[in-house]
Amino acid sequence: MTMAVDKTTTDREALHARLLEIGNQRYHDKHPFHVMLHGGRASTTQVRAWVINRYYYQSRIPMKDAAFLSRCEDPELRRAWRSRIEDHDGGLDEGGGIRRWLRLAEAVGLDPQYVASTRGVLSATRFAVDAYVAFVRERPLIEAVASSLTELFAPKIHSERITGLLEHYAFADDAALAYFRQRLNEAPRDVEFGLAYVLGHADTREKQDAAAAALTFKTDVLWAQLDALYFAYVVPGRIPPGAWDGREGVAREPTAKEAAE
Amino acid sequence: MTMAVDKTTTDREALHARLLEIGNQRYHDKHPFHVMLHGGRASTTQVRAWVINRYYYQSRIPMKDAAFLSRCEDPELRRAWRSRIEDHDGGLDEGGGIRRWLRLAEAVGLDPQYVASTRGVLSATRFAVDAYVAFVRERPLIEAVASSLTELFAPKIHSERITGLLEHYAFADDAALAYFRQRLNEAPRDVEFGLAYVLGHADTREKQDAAAAALTFKTDVLWAQLDALYFAYVVPGRIPPGAWDGREGVAREPTAKEAAE
Repeated sequence: MTMAVDKTTTDREALHARLLEIGNQRYHDKHPFHVMLHGGRASTTQVRAWVINRYYYQSRIPMKDAAFLSRCEDPELRRAWRSRIEDHDGGLDEGGGIRRWLRLAEAVGLDPQYVASTRGVLSATRFAVDAYVAFVRERPLIEAVASSLTELFAPKIHSERITGLLEHYAFADDAALAYFRQRLNEAPRDVEFGLAYVLGHADTREKQDAAAAALTFKTDVLWAQLDALYFAYVVPGRIPPGAWDGREGVAREPTAKEAAE
Repeated sequence: MTMAVDKTTTDREALHARLLEIGNQRYHDKHPFHVMLHGGRASTTQVRAWVINRYYYQSRIPMKDAAFLSRCEDPELRRAWRSRIEDHDGGLDEGGGIRRWLRLAEAVGLDPQYVASTRGVLSATRFAVDAYVAFVRERPLIEAVASSLTELFAPKIHSERITGLLEHYAFADDAALAYFRQRLNEAPRDVEFGLAYVLGHADTREKQDAAAAALTFKTDVLWAQLDALYFAYVVPGRIPPGAWDGREGVAREPTAKEAAE
């Protein structure tokens, strides 16, 4: 007779469902800026502002992952995690998510050197992203891993983005969107590892709550970036002092096709 | 004949003027949220949202100053700086800016325990304020001191605020506004010390630039808080997930006089 419920399995399933529900409620695919962007209603300036600000996030991901590695005593964990840095930074001369993002920058008519300088990035973007790096540097490892689990929800947004950008924007082609296609290959492997780690290590109610709070924190990091972008570049007249003014770093005028969008 | 210009004096004066100009361009007295608040056009909910979010800033100031003290090897500097913590935290049972801010919270109809819990604070507020604490913990001392020099511009905003709130809002009286009156006594002493420190230690062009950048960073910290507040509570329908919804922690309904404002 097997009357006893396997408590461990139940706990894992409950935590898994709880994490998915956080994404369901708070992931930034629901933010009005993304709805606007993917629906083809963003102006050239708004698309560019997104590319400039989101670059700052991309640029800090390998630093975040290096901060994580710097705290891992377990070589197994370091070996499994290290590919994230390689995926984003690429090799000495080519490859990597950061270079792919700069190709997107070029495609939307920005000088990639300007974008890479991170001048003109909104302060609110910096504060949110830097909070994420600090979180991973300072919190217990299980929380640091849990904060990466927004990748659970990323494949859906990347797919919507590829479809939406290709359909609505003249700049969008396979080269411009290579970043997103590549993430569709990388993210599932990363998130499978991270999810197994969190479900395996959250063996107390306190750790389960901490993991859920860490994922919630990360959804806030993403949401706050889009709030700042929306306020500065969609609400008229609200660009804060020192932020990109729509002109600096622009490599070309919008094409006739873009202007008509 | 004294033909030689005293370069040190010239440099000090140029840096002083440069710091004042940063405030002139970027201090948050120019932000539309403050213009609205001081001009009597903020709703009860908007005033309360400001009190809730600004509390988070107040609550981190003594932690910021403790981070500064933790890095000072010079007992003279520690002795001079320590009063900032005393001013904000007060004694074991009474006094201090934090308790005065909670009296303001009570005056605007909020439960001070709710405000002190910092639940409902905008994530963007946390990110900006935490960036300030991290800055003071991590950067060279001269930059940490320079980032405090927004106090140069604070007496003017505190005076405008006292006048504006007394004129336009039923909740405003001497007890409610004690925080601001007290800061009018404390800030000039603090800023005199900080300014003398920065002008005395910025003996290279590089340090002068770093001091100016630190003050600019701090104006961004203040500005970003008001951007987030404006977006969430002035632009309709934009309160982000998890932030104060206008109801939690409310201790009383607006009075008839407040409702008519």
